[in-house]
Amino acid sequence: MSVITIERKVLEKNDEIARRNRELFARHGVFVINMVSSPGAGKTSILEKTLEHLKQRIPVAVIEGDVQTDIDAQRVARYGVPAVQILTRGGCHLEAHLVSDALAAIDLAATKILVIENVGNLVCPSNYDLGEAMKVVVASTTEGDDKPLKYPGMFHNASVLIINKVDLIPYLNCRLDVLRANALRINPSLRVFETSCTSGQGIPEWCAWLADQARP
Amino acid sequence: MSVITIERKVLEKNDEIARRNRELFARHGVFVINMVSSPGAGKTSILEKTLEHLKQRIPVAVIEGDVQTDIDAQRVARYGVPAVQILTRGGCHLEAHLVSDALAAIDLAATKILVIENVGNLVCPSNYDLGEAMKVVVASTTEGDDKPLKYPGMFHNASVLIINKVDLIPYLNCRLDVLRANALRINPSLRVFETSCTSGQGIPEWCAWLADQARP
Repeated sequence: MSVITIERKVLEKNDEIARRNRELFARHGVFVINMVSSPGAGKTSILEKTLEHLKQRIPVAVIEGDVQTDIDAQRVARYGVPAVQILTRGGCHLEAHLVSDALAAIDLAATKILVIENVGNLVCPSNYDLGEAMKVVVASTTEGDDKPLKYPGMFHNASVLIINKVDLIPYLNCRLDVLRANALRINPSLRVFETSCTSGQGIPEWCAWLADQARP
Repeated sequence: MSVITIERKVLEKNDEIARRNRELFARHGVFVINMVSSPGAGKTSILEKTLEHLKQRIPVAVIEGDVQTDIDAQRVARYGVPAVQILTRGGCHLEAHLVSDALAAIDLAATKILVIENVGNLVCPSNYDLGEAMKVVVASTTEGDDKPLKYPGMFHNASVLIINKVDLIPYLNCRLDVLRANALRINPSLRVFETSCTSGQGIPEWCAWLADQARP
């Protein structure tokens, strides 16, 4: 029995559970995003800014995925939203069954938007459907403008790209137009936002778009 | 047959090939480092600066690991050193057999230092021995000061930590002393360098240390 066969079985099993998650989200009218990025690209900071903007208007819940520590769930919980931490204990990505388990702690009937923050990893999470409506990939300007070409799977499978830390552009070699063009070359249908959690640039546009998706 | 069993077999097979790589490196007196980091932390930039410093004095060869594109091997080849690109085509880490294959294109008898630049991924590459003398983990200040706590496996398995992009500290929330303390909490024996490829800070110290390791 080859490793490839086993991996295919793992993915098939994951897809089956993801399908059930997706049905559950549809039944409750919950819009679900799966946020992915390299470590430290700013997923949690964008989420914090998003909660600041949306939590008075739209009920948001959060599932945090990390290899270790509940630092992110603690950061998010300060905004008074339901937050569940999944620890993968060495695992490099979330899988649908982990999300399914975490859902036991979330009242989906009282939720409009569910944000799943994946493990910081630009490779492995791209292959695992969690039942989300779409993947949102965050790319930091500090990572350079070639990342979409070097990690195409994630940009191909995402529907939205948030280019974060644009306030640092003056101090970097990263060319914003090249980063954007490289991403659109991999996936021409990407919806692109440019944000800074320091200056607040682009956050209202991103939040307005997200709120629109959550409307029935 | 469980997935865990298969994975253990994969790791055991990898360890066996890594052992053979290590013996080969020892026979030729080649000092080998396995550079790991998040995508865009600056592994290739540090490598370029290292080649600038060392290539006149010490024969260096490079193996580049990427999911896609030979951008990095092209960058490195400009310095006139032997460079081999491994494309994992979706794979999230290098394995010992890929390095073994790449060695066919490198004259080990004419090499003193071999740098293997792994796929940008702070999780998976930590589990795969390539036969290197040590892992060098690069952490960018832009990723924040909590990364060693959130991705402990990599910091635990590395012997050297390069904290890169220290020139950006004035524009970030990252606290250098906290980042360093978090890393040393996971692994008290880490040798730490602080570098900037923009200002050149710390590069001579890192290169002097590396050159010392390569001496018989």
